Amino acid sequence: MRSDPLAITFADVQSAADVIDGVAVRTPLLEFLPLSERVGSRVLVKFEGLQHTGSFKFRGAYNRLARLTPEERKAGVVAWSSGNHAQGVAAAAKMLDIKAAIVMPADAPAVKIANTRALGAEIIAYDRYTQSREEIATDLARARGATLVPSFDDPFIIAGQGTAGLEIVEQAAAAGADIGRLLVCCGGGGLVAGIATAVRETHPEVPIYSVEPEAFDDTARSLVSGRRETVAPGATSICDALLAPSPGALTFPINKALLTAGLSVSDAEVAEAMRFAFLSLKLVVEPGGAVALAALLAGKAPAAAGATVIVMSGANVDGADFARILANG
Amino acid sequence: MRSDPLAITFADVQSAADVIDGVAVRTPLLEFLPLSERVGSRVLVKFEGLQHTGSFKFRGAYNRLARLTPEERKAGVVAWSSGNHAQGVAAAAKMLDIKAAIVMPADAPAVKIANTRALGAEIIAYDRYTQSREEIATDLARARGATLVPSFDDPFIIAGQGTAGLEIVEQAAAAGADIGRLLVCCGGGGLVAGIATAVRETHPEVPIYSVEPEAFDDTARSLVSGRRETVAPGATSICDALLAPSPGALTFPINKALLTAGLSVSDAEVAEAMRFAFLSLKLVVEPGGAVALAALLAGKAPAAAGATVIVMSGANVDGADFARILANG
Repeated sequence: MRSDPLAITFADVQSAADVIDGVAVRTPLLEFLPLSERVGSRVLVKFEGLQHTGSFKFRGAYNRLARLTPEERKAGVVAWSSGNHAQGVAAAAKMLDIKAAIVMPADAPAVKIANTRALGAEIIAYDRYTQSREEIATDLARARGATLVPSFDDPFIIAGQGTAGLEIVEQAAAAGADIGRLLVCCGGGGLVAGIATAVRETHPEVPIYSVEPEAFDDTARSLVSGRRETVAPGATSICDALLAPSPGALTFPINKALLTAGLSVSDAEVAEAMRFAFLSLKLVVEPGGAVALAALLAGKAPAAAGATVIVMSGANVDGADFARILANG
Repeated sequence: MRSDPLAITFADVQSAADVIDGVAVRTPLLEFLPLSERVGSRVLVKFEGLQHTGSFKFRGAYNRLARLTPEERKAGVVAWSSGNHAQGVAAAAKMLDIKAAIVMPADAPAVKIANTRALGAEIIAYDRYTQSREEIATDLARARGATLVPSFDDPFIIAGQGTAGLEIVEQAAAAGADIGRLLVCCGGGGLVAGIATAVRETHPEVPIYSVEPEAFDDTARSLVSGRRETVAPGATSICDALLAPSPGALTFPINKALLTAGLSVSDAEVAEAMRFAFLSLKLVVEPGGAVALAALLAGKAPAAAGATVIVMSGANVDGADFARILANG
């Protein structure tokens, strides 16, 4: 039985790193005594809240947009996103002088809509429950001759997100840490697919886990069944960044080949992780960005020798929502 | 007219850096597009919220405690503090296996009291309005034969805080930034005195400003009058870490010799800075740690060519207080 090649290779991640070098933030890999003490072994935190636009999404978006031809750049780009990909595309488009139109749910966090608009993008609001964002975006792109920029199912996007994995490997080595296990937030699976591609090159045996909200554990179940499972209709979660209904056509084969397993966490565990990050790490993290930390704190990941690396993937959360989560502690 | 030598020299800061090397966190000097864009020039943020115990105070405390003789270590240490110095001393004492007793106001932020206790220190609560913490601590130290660890008026404490300045100079150079001005939070003046001692060695002409809460602008007024001014009785501020009633006997001569001027900010400007840090920097900062950012955002610092460096000195704030400040935005 022959299987198709994966959508990206390690060389694609290296190429993306060249493209974003000096443009994206090389986010720090941070270490905290209270976290390592609580877990009982060394923990390193890749905090993508410090990336441009407050999430890892800028990496992939910039790598994608930088590959457009001059003609494509002139025609502009269209994307759909609940907010982090929107901001990443808007920021990359602004830097590269490309017009961006973003289809966003009307009930996305206000901070995400406001930031996307502030970056100069055109916002097209839709109703998450009655309209298809794919249709709206596809029609718009066709009408304008613009390029659609998917939020995860695109080789340049996946490779761009993978640059965070290259940095993790380099930064962990610089810190004298042996990576024992790696936990990465997962929505459509682009970030974990890219990071796994980067890390597997030098760490073929290290356990790598995707982490999802319990009601959106499609990647975890797909990794078990071996085929792309979908989320139950009506599922909800506070993790607005991780509501993808199924693993991607390009991301899932990568994750199936490279991941150890999928973990999942409850909204209560996510809120607890956000409070821990506030009190003990002094970092703001959004719900979707906190799932890997939540899984670690809740003891969901099998123990492993060596250091634990977790990715905190984003930090775009409204003040009112953050205040409510702090108050519920 | 001859003046006494200053309490510390550049060599003392270098010596402190050797002592804390590999023990304290080398906190990152961070850069954010939204902040640089708002200010109109490059801004670099030294974020001491990532230091052990969530503030710069660990630097000085560890440098002080590491200098104790074996006999002094056995007899333990006593300190008074509203919370950040308390945690710094408690953490350093724990690492060095020294018993620590800390005199803390009963109305200090709960997170600061809880963290100090969790670090193994004995807490002695006092009433901020009717009791003298100096007397309680001095009596206790005498009764136990323990060493008093002042929160700022001590050469080893000042030199220890100065290590943040050494790192700023090195990290700014590594980032290719020319330091054009430097803004540092100021309570008793230990942090800014130490940092100024470190930075002046290589940057004799760069403007360095202390920043205080408006009602506690004793250092600013003292820099104008040339002598140690005091705070008006009954003064209040949300900056619980910066309520020192007058500049220190050791810190003021340093600051008089090395600082350009003192700036001050209102509590409303501090709250605005905390919200900005939350929304745009994704960092938690406590009121006293936000005054330099507040001064920068409020345009209080005279313009200068080159990069602006600000210190965000601490991040120990209760969730309820933080939630209230977010909600007031």
